[in-house]
Formats: sequence, C-alpha cells, structure tokens
Amino acid sequence: MMPGESSIEAGLALARQLFDTIGRRSFDGVGFTRAAYGEGEQTAHDLVAAAARDLDLDIAVDAALNLSMTLRGDDPDPPPLVIGSHLDAVPQGGNFDGLAGVLAGLACLAAYRAAGVRPPRDIVLIAIRAEESAWFGAQHIGSRAMLGTLDPRILDEARRIDSGLSLAEHMRQAGADVGRLRNGAALVDPARLRGYLELHIEQGPLLVSRALPLGIVTGIRGNLRCRKATCVGEYAHSGTAPRALRRDAVFAVSELVGRIDELWRVIEDEEGGDLVATFGRFSTDPNAHAVTTVPGEVVFSFDARSHAQAVLRRVEAALRQAMDEIASRRGVTFTCDSFTGDAPAAMNPDFQGLLSQGCERLSIPAMPIASGAGHDAGDFAAAGVPSAMIFVRNDKGSHNPQEAMEFDDFALGVRLMVWFVANLKG
Amino acid sequence: MMPGESSIEAGLALARQLFDTIGRRSFDGVGFTRAAYGEGEQTAHDLVAAAARDLDLDIAVDAALNLSMTLRGDDPDPPPLVIGSHLDAVPQGGNFDGLAGVLAGLACLAAYRAAGVRPPRDIVLIAIRAEESAWFGAQHIGSRAMLGTLDPRILDEARRIDSGLSLAEHMRQAGADVGRLRNGAALVDPARLRGYLELHIEQGPLLVSRALPLGIVTGIRGNLRCRKATCVGEYAHSGTAPRALRRDAVFAVSELVGRIDELWRVIEDEEGGDLVATFGRFSTDPNAHAVTTVPGEVVFSFDARSHAQAVLRRVEAALRQAMDEIASRRGVTFTCDSFTGDAPAAMNPDFQGLLSQGCERLSIPAMPIASGAGHDAGDFAAAGVPSAMIFVRNDKGSHNPQEAMEFDDFALGVRLMVWFVANLKG
Repeated sequence: MMPGESSIEAGLALARQLFDTIGRRSFDGVGFTRAAYGEGEQTAHDLVAAAARDLDLDIAVDAALNLSMTLRGDDPDPPPLVIGSHLDAVPQGGNFDGLAGVLAGLACLAAYRAAGVRPPRDIVLIAIRAEESAWFGAQHIGSRAMLGTLDPRILDEARRIDSGLSLAEHMRQAGADVGRLRNGAALVDPARLRGYLELHIEQGPLLVSRALPLGIVTGIRGNLRCRKATCVGEYAHSGTAPRALRRDAVFAVSELVGRIDELWRVIEDEEGGDLVATFGRFSTDPNAHAVTTVPGEVVFSFDARSHAQAVLRRVEAALRQAMDEIASRRGVTFTCDSFTGDAPAAMNPDFQGLLSQGCERLSIPAMPIASGAGHDAGDFAAAGVPSAMIFVRNDKGSHNPQEAMEFDDFALGVRLMVWFVANLKG
Repeated sequence: MMPGESSIEAGLALARQLFDTIGRRSFDGVGFTRAAYGEGEQTAHDLVAAAARDLDLDIAVDAALNLSMTLRGDDPDPPPLVIGSHLDAVPQGGNFDGLAGVLAGLACLAAYRAAGVRPPRDIVLIAIRAEESAWFGAQHIGSRAMLGTLDPRILDEARRIDSGLSLAEHMRQAGADVGRLRNGAALVDPARLRGYLELHIEQGPLLVSRALPLGIVTGIRGNLRCRKATCVGEYAHSGTAPRALRRDAVFAVSELVGRIDELWRVIEDEEGGDLVATFGRFSTDPNAHAVTTVPGEVVFSFDARSHAQAVLRRVEAALRQAMDEIASRRGVTFTCDSFTGDAPAAMNPDFQGLLSQGCERLSIPAMPIASGAGHDAGDFAAAGVPSAMIFVRNDKGSHNPQEAMEFDDFALGVRLMVWFVANLKG
C-alpha cells in the first residue's frame, strides 16, 4: 500500500520546515556553509536525527558518523533499499546540494509514517558525511568509508581547507571511530543491499533548458584529476632574455592547455565522444611575477570527466606526452601530483526503467540525463550496489548561494521516490 | 689633457669604496633594496653627494630630486656633457644595476680632480631618481621629470608597491617640489646639452657568452605594455557545464598566448625581425578558483619589446584582433589598461663611433650590442639629446642579488669614459 496524498503532503511539510531551519542555521551571510565533519554539517545531522526520532525511525551512526535512519518494512527478509545523500555543503554554497536528497528520503519515510503503512521492505535513509571535495580535497569520504573504498592514508594526509587540521583530527573531534577506519574494511556489506537511490539537484543547465522538472540519471562521469601541477622554468628579464634561451612557464602551460583544447575538439566534434576538461587554476607566483619578468613558475590544476574510461585514459596519455614534449622543447620541468581518478559509473538499467515507469504513472515529465558531477551514488554503483539517481531541475548551477530548486519540482521527486519504494521488487 | 694612470686608479678606488658602503647600507638580508624616493635610494644619494662634495664638484638638486654634480671644464662655452644613471634598485635586487653608472661617472670626475686637470667642457654627472618600474609601476620617473616627458597624472595615480602611497606623497616626504612637476615642464633644456652618456651592466647573457668585457649600445628596444589585463568568463561546475556553454577564461587567455607565440615565431624565424614577448602574470583568482570549477576570470600582463616600432604596432594590432576574435568565439570579455609604450631609441652614431675608436686606442675588446631593457638614455635620446651607452659584462642577469659584474670590467668602462670625455668635440 502506498501513502496517500495527505500523507505525502505531511512528509513534504516536514522537508520544507527542515530546508528552512537547516538553511537558517548554516547561513554564513553570503551563502550556506556546512563544513565536512564540522559545525554546519553536525547541525544538519542533529536536526535530521531529531526529526527521524520524532518519526520513530531506528537511528544508528557508523564509525565514520554516517547517520542511518531505518523504517522497518512489512517483510524483514528482502534486502533493504538505501536512500541517501549528503549534508555537507561547500563554503558559501547553496542550500539544496545534498540536503535535498536527505530531506526527500525523510519526506518519503514521513509519508509512510503519516499513512500508518509500512513499505514492502526495510528502507534505510542515510545522511552521508563529507561528500564535497571542497573541504578536504578528497571526496565522498563518508560513503567510501562505509563501503571500504576510502584510502586510509587520506585520514592523515587530507587537511581541511579552513583549519589546516587533518581529516583524522576533525573526525576524532566530531566523535568518529578513526581507529576502525584505519584498517579500511567496509562498514556495510554491499552485497546485502537491494539498491541505492539518491535524489539530487541537477548541477548543470539541461533540465531548465528543456523545461522538465526531473531527470533520471543514466550514469555518472568518471574523472581524471591532478589537483596541483607545477611547471618550473626560469625567471629572466623580459627585455633581455632572447627567445631561444627563455624557459617561460606561461608559454609552456598555455601550450599544454591548447593541446588539450584541440584533443577535446577532436573527441567531441569529430568522434562524438564524451569529455569535459578544465584547468581550474593557472597561477604565476604573486611573490615573484612582474610585468617585465619572464615567468619562471606556474601552478595549475587539471580535471577531465567522461562517461568513457577509454577517453580518460587517452586524455591522461595525451597530457603526459604533451608535458614531456613541451618540457624538452621549452626547457621547463613539469611535476604533477599523481593523477587521481574515479571510473565512470553506470546507473542500474532496471532501476532507471522503474523510475521511468513511475514518471509515466504519475504523469511527471522527465528525461534521461547524464551526471557530469560525481555523487555518492557512483561509489555505491562501483561497490556493486544497483544504484539510481533522480535529478531535480535547478537553475543557476550549484556550489553557490543562487541554487534555485523549486519546491514543487522537489515534491515531484519525492512522489516519484515514494512510488519507487512501493514498487521495487526483488 | 687626460688624467694619467694613477689618477684613474684614484677614481676607481673611490668607486670601489662606494660600491662597498652603499651595498652594505642597502643590503636587506637577501639582496639590495633601494626604494625609489625611499630610504635606500636616499642613502645612496647622500653618500654620493658627500663624495662629490669632497671632490669640490658643484652640487644641485632639481625639483624631482635628481642630483647633479658638475665638474667645470676648461672652456665654459661648449654645451655640457651629461653622464648619468640611477641609484634606485628593485626589491631584493643587485648592487650594480644603476649604481655602476653613477660611480663610473664619479670615478671619471675624481680622476680629473686627482690629475688636477679640467675636461674640455663642463661635465654634469646626474644621479637620476626612480628609474626602476618595480616601485611605482611607472619607469624612468626622474629622467622624464627632468626632460618634461613625465605624464603628471602619474604623480597621484602611481602607488609604491610596498607602502601603497602615491608617488606625489613619497616625493613630498623625500623633499621634492611636487607642485613644480605638476605642470609637466622640463627642468633642463635638452637642446643645450652636448650629449648623454650612461654606463650600465648588461642585463642579458651576450657579453659573457662572447667573452667581451664591454659593449657599445646601438639602440634601446621600445616596448608595448599592458600592465593589467582581465579576461572575464563565467564560473561553472567543471563536471556539468558542456563545452559549448562554457566561458572558460583560462582556455581563452591560453589561446591568446598561443597566438602571440606563433606571431613571434613568424617575425623572428621567418622574417628575421626583432621581438621578445612576455606574459609575466597569468593568474586565476585564488579566492574563487578550484580544481572542479571552470575558471571565470584571469588577470594577466603583457610586455613586448622590439627595436622596430613597426613590429610593436603589428603586435598590438594582432593582440587586439586576437582578443576580439577569442572573446566572441569563447563568450569572454577582455579588458585591458590602455596599452603604454616607449618608442625604440637609437643611440647616436657619432657617439658610438667615438666609443669604438676609444676601445681601439685603449685596446679594450668590445662589440656593438642592442639593449633589450629600457634605460634613462632612451629618454634623453627621445628628447633629442645625442646619447650613448657603455654596457659592462655581467653574469647572472640583473634585478637579482646574483648580479656579477667584475670590477676589472667596470674599470675598463671607466677608462673608456675618461677617454670619451677627453676626446668629445663640438
């Protein structure tokens, strides 16, 4: 049995109230800041946990402080469905990235409670910790800790951007069992989960441009990343150093950017492949650069994403080859943190089909959509858990205070989630 | 009559002592700092003035605090020869850039004094203020004030890099007559000068690579400069913004750099033209850039130099055209402080000939050499004063503590200067 209209409205009312309260409590004057393993995230966890307690859900916190809130199902035997998303938010970010997914899950469970009916199976809503890479330079910390895919070295190596303290230290202060995480073992058995479902605002412009409230995610782009690369040449007088003797770091890195630009054009325009590439940072040294000095150093970053692992491998090879070639011709040296990357993650086809069916039944206009950004859902999929995502239309992008999800669109997402929970078999 | 060997040695001894004293007094722990219209420059002026007083030279200070020290000639009628250079030094710079020229002039006049002979005409040694652009972003302030070519707006607009105070304020504190400079009138009549001679360390590697102690400068490269240009695009999520909708400032400016790189190659390799080009600064915004954010802004600078004004005009046109074209194709906006520039300045052929003749007579190995860097001599030449420069071999470039002029090479420059003074006709 599915919750009726008035029960869903009750769930939505709870979500609306929590959007307001958590938003107000984490507003920093400009945007919404919820530091991973920090004050803002903890406040959100406390408020969500309190609401879950009011709903009489079974509450538990794992070694990484992921908060799970379980609604027992009609039948205790079938494997549980996880609904999840995160509660941290980038510095001066928006109120909806992450929070919408947790509150959608809470609204869904609250609707069942309001209706006084049980779902067919246990539903475990998880408020996941530390998804955003903005805080520790490492992403999806909570879900990876849970799934046993977090590199334990990150615990001591990653430092939070605002405090400079290590991830381990912040976890400890927040009350996590860091010792348990050091061995890297999973905190849940992925094989015992029926699936993972996450609602999230779209972080691109597609649903707005197509005037559709929801998207059903087909897959999550993988990435190839170098957080900090350096090109070292030689400082020299801009008027007196002849071209042949220059070791100009700006010309060198600009050429590298141009090479990737051209490769991107070929892959996208000529081959129809999927790729985006970004040099988000490109900086001469403010303590040494000058109008009349040949720049001797550039620090830059690189991020490429694709749905095809083969494309990412090709980009990495091209980047390395271009760096070698430019280095020897221009007399510069490139050094690069080791490349890190996540493989592309396909969403489960059956789950996508069921979500499409739900949209049809509920008359919700929706489209299949690829996710350019990474999500915890990608980590669940990589761990073998059948996973799906619902994207909610959102103007103005994400990671900024202007995130503009309409509550009516969110409500459609919650209705679809309730329908999915009621209709998921197996 | 020319000073003999022992008199020249006396002049050199004075120079050596002042290199030591001024160097010690302006050492900052790393290099030599003599702020324009600041403490280090003033100390050097005081020490040079005291030495000039000991030599009984006629001392005067103009409204811009340029210090002139005149040795009266045998004949008061012919127009005087100016020997000049500057006493400021860039932050953590070397001890020889500028100072060598003033001390060479002082050694020359001291040699005449020691010999008890008068030069054929009045010789005016000028310690010029504020030549380095590092301090106020404006260069050759002292000589331009003297020659009436300093844009008076700079007085209030230019701010010193360390203090943030305006040029006018620093001049006032140092004792200059700022009011007089506001009308922009020349403080000397260039038409009444016989010529201008400046000795300076070479700031490039040529004399060292040719194993020659001296160079006779043929001309000074002109420049085209944009101190601060900005490319504004749009920040976006690096995973979700599709290529066609991106307005990536790093890709845009990198393409601009690539265009200039290619134009430079054509001008130098295919056409044999003279050009150097430098984007000394290229910076994404440290408060907004991130590994996973499409960069929405880049600040950069541009400096091109050439002996041919036509080349500089062509570079400016190419830069403007490329910015327009890239802006419209990539959806970015370029803004640029108005381009500033100095025309190339040819050194006087007769003076060059006389210096060559002097090298032959004195058996000093020397070569003709072009100056890539700007010098006060360029401003005197532009004002119609026959001008010449002697370059002294110097390893390790300039504007750094490693400047490595050998005193023996400097001494050859002083001998050549003494010979020039004695043999200049007209």
